[in-house]
Amino acid sequence: MARKSSLSGFPEWLPQERLVELHILDTLRRTFELHGFSSVETRAVETVGQLLRKGEIDKEVYAVSRLQDEDAGAGDDSLALHFDLTVPFARYVVENAGHLAFPFRRYQIQKVWRGERPQEGRAREFTQADIDVVGDGTLPFRYDVELALVIAEALGALPIPDFQLRINNRKLAEGFYRGIGLSDTPGVLRSIDKLEKIGAAKVAQLLKSELGATDEQAEAALSLAAIRSRDTSFVQQVRSLGVEDPLLEEGLAELEQVIAEASRRAPGKVIADLSIARGLDYYTGTVYETVLVGHESLGSICSGGRYDALASKGNRIFPGVGLSIGVTRLVTRILNQEFAAASRHVPTAVLVTLADDDSWSAAQDVAATLRSRGIPVEVAASAEKFGKQIKFADRRGIPFVWFTSEDGTHEVKDIRSGEQVPADPSSWAPPAEDRWPAVLQQSRPAAESVAPELN
Amino acid sequence: MARKSSLSGFPEWLPQERLVELHILDTLRRTFELHGFSSVETRAVETVGQLLRKGEIDKEVYAVSRLQDEDAGAGDDSLALHFDLTVPFARYVVENAGHLAFPFRRYQIQKVWRGERPQEGRAREFTQADIDVVGDGTLPFRYDVELALVIAEALGALPIPDFQLRINNRKLAEGFYRGIGLSDTPGVLRSIDKLEKIGAAKVAQLLKSELGATDEQAEAALSLAAIRSRDTSFVQQVRSLGVEDPLLEEGLAELEQVIAEASRRAPGKVIADLSIARGLDYYTGTVYETVLVGHESLGSICSGGRYDALASKGNRIFPGVGLSIGVTRLVTRILNQEFAAASRHVPTAVLVTLADDDSWSAAQDVAATLRSRGIPVEVAASAEKFGKQIKFADRRGIPFVWFTSEDGTHEVKDIRSGEQVPADPSSWAPPAEDRWPAVLQQSRPAAESVAPELN
Repeated sequence: MARKSSLSGFPEWLPQERLVELHILDTLRRTFELHGFSSVETRAVETVGQLLRKGEIDKEVYAVSRLQDEDAGAGDDSLALHFDLTVPFARYVVENAGHLAFPFRRYQIQKVWRGERPQEGRAREFTQADIDVVGDGTLPFRYDVELALVIAEALGALPIPDFQLRINNRKLAEGFYRGIGLSDTPGVLRSIDKLEKIGAAKVAQLLKSELGATDEQAEAALSLAAIRSRDTSFVQQVRSLGVEDPLLEEGLAELEQVIAEASRRAPGKVIADLSIARGLDYYTGTVYETVLVGHESLGSICSGGRYDALASKGNRIFPGVGLSIGVTRLVTRILNQEFAAASRHVPTAVLVTLADDDSWSAAQDVAATLRSRGIPVEVAASAEKFGKQIKFADRRGIPFVWFTSEDGTHEVKDIRSGEQVPADPSSWAPPAEDRWPAVLQQSRPAAESVAPELN
Repeated sequence: MARKSSLSGFPEWLPQERLVELHILDTLRRTFELHGFSSVETRAVETVGQLLRKGEIDKEVYAVSRLQDEDAGAGDDSLALHFDLTVPFARYVVENAGHLAFPFRRYQIQKVWRGERPQEGRAREFTQADIDVVGDGTLPFRYDVELALVIAEALGALPIPDFQLRINNRKLAEGFYRGIGLSDTPGVLRSIDKLEKIGAAKVAQLLKSELGATDEQAEAALSLAAIRSRDTSFVQQVRSLGVEDPLLEEGLAELEQVIAEASRRAPGKVIADLSIARGLDYYTGTVYETVLVGHESLGSICSGGRYDALASKGNRIFPGVGLSIGVTRLVTRILNQEFAAASRHVPTAVLVTLADDDSWSAAQDVAATLRSRGIPVEVAASAEKFGKQIKFADRRGIPFVWFTSEDGTHEVKDIRSGEQVPADPSSWAPPAEDRWPAVLQQSRPAAESVAPELN
């Protein structure tokens, strides 16, 4: 169970917990780089004008000003901490368009800040890991398929319970609503977005009272949102509702492509879920959400979508598609439910002991030889009794202690088994699994609820 | 030459520049972990009270408040961005003392923020890489020696010009000043700290006018500050000044230990420099600064020291010793002077081409096989003419393109040499040096000035 942080909403990890987080970050980085994504970091601050341009709720934003600056205003030029990595990346693309090769694939792993009320799964400072592909003018739809596959692979490599990517398409939804005579797409999406929270009956009321929908329109919208399938059978289910619209057809064809390919390459990880709305206005096609199966109340651990016009520079537009993994949300759940743990608390595999105080420099030579061969080593700081030096290692979880006798011969002891053998610093190595701390998945605890049944 | 950032003082790198920074960060991390340092991150914000406790100039601090929070005050409980990693780490140690094994070795690599006037080598947002060892109650002096060695090894592994660790000892200086009758140690240190900026004559004036020093006292203080040696001969030089004081003797013995061991293990990288003062009040023994030889005007790229009482909890004190590398300062100089560059701009080693649009899924199979063997691969998004697909790879610096013909046979082409050979996705691999982008040190450009001669 993770400890309470001393400042609510700003989690900090103990070294052994940080090893779990580092494992997550390293695994994501490796997967993204194997898929050709370049690392980018943007500054932590944006101008307030830039941040609010896309209509995010400004209450969540942390303003930044020099402590002694009495002229600090709240104008568009004043600074604030970024609340996601998409808006800063859009600015970065526009500013550096002349230096980038499009379609540009980037991953970005950084802290973001939101002044929300803290609770599990919602921190004020947290780490996101984003991937996006951005085109210059156009971006082939295939990237919508590819990004779902990359994310399924990345999440599949993490020590987490089973997950499910829920995918929908804005064109499909917008076309359908238009087909039944509801033209306020954002309004309908906002209502549908509340489905899980307030239920179908209340959403129907909202559609009727706020958007003037008839009973039949509300029912049709809810019928669409009820459709889920692990394969492409959702197409037939939508068609059976009898609505016709060219945009609906376009969206159906797109979502069919994503689900067909993803259900083949990542079986069981991806479903078409026509209730997924995603609050943000800038999505224009595919939208993604991801839940941990049995931990749905945690909320989405990875979301995103296609945005055709997030970034532009004069007449030039940069359409993109991307997803963002909530790393801190995942790590918090992993630690709280002990899904995974580090095999030891410190990097050190070997403690080189001191026979007497004058042997420190010789011990450093042994350590340097071992390190030059990629073995993490510490040297004892003082020549206490060997029992105390071994206890020092044991308390840290350092598996091996090294002894050098006066005649220059060496021995190494595995303090778990007690086995002690002669060793040469230029050739001895610990077993591969002991070289570095490993992060091991634990047996899976009971899920917090039963996953919903699907067709 | 690094480009100008769109917000002064907040540098952002292009993907190929970020590869250089990542190389620096990865190299530092590996060195620190090989020496048994654990990774820790602290939150970006501290309370203002915590930050100003150690007397840092409050003008440099960025305050943080919710944009819509009208009660946002500037009280001790209000929040601000950390300006270094030492103060947050001290708080972390106190808060988590019950969960840490002492002496506790940690490294911490994070952004910090200071509202200073931006210039080369001084950004408002920059990355520091810190290592510290902290004890519970006591901390053996040997760690002062060890940390100099770890840092020399870490910096030695970076693609930077020659560097020099300049080391002094506060006890030595304080004992000496007391021995000659100057008791306001912080005052003397503040004056001596200005030596490089204003010269010896003006420092002598300061000592006399502000601290009431006599001509002889000022001369003696300046004589001490003039002493530098690559070996332990500084001890004799100090003794020849004829000052006696027990604290001076203690400091001499400590500095002698550091220099003796470091000059043996990292020859030419370390000097005793008795002019090094370090502005911060919390240092109590060893102090370190580091310059790039020939780039002294850049300022120190790595500084730190021993602090005996930075952190405490009731009667319990946590003495420590640590150093902080200015990563952004280093990276900026590396990029501006082209000390190093990435061998290519993207992680991708292979682009899998498409013969026709229907082959995308089969191409993903080839890519997945290659990736499962640790080779970074992209798949073309559309079946343009091969010449265009090759150009796509060439523009990104992707060295290999992959072709699959209708009969299922594969060929791979090195687009630099034009050589094309049959290949099997389950066995072919690029040469080791092409698998990932490498960061290569360039031939060294002329230094900006000649390094000062030493005895």
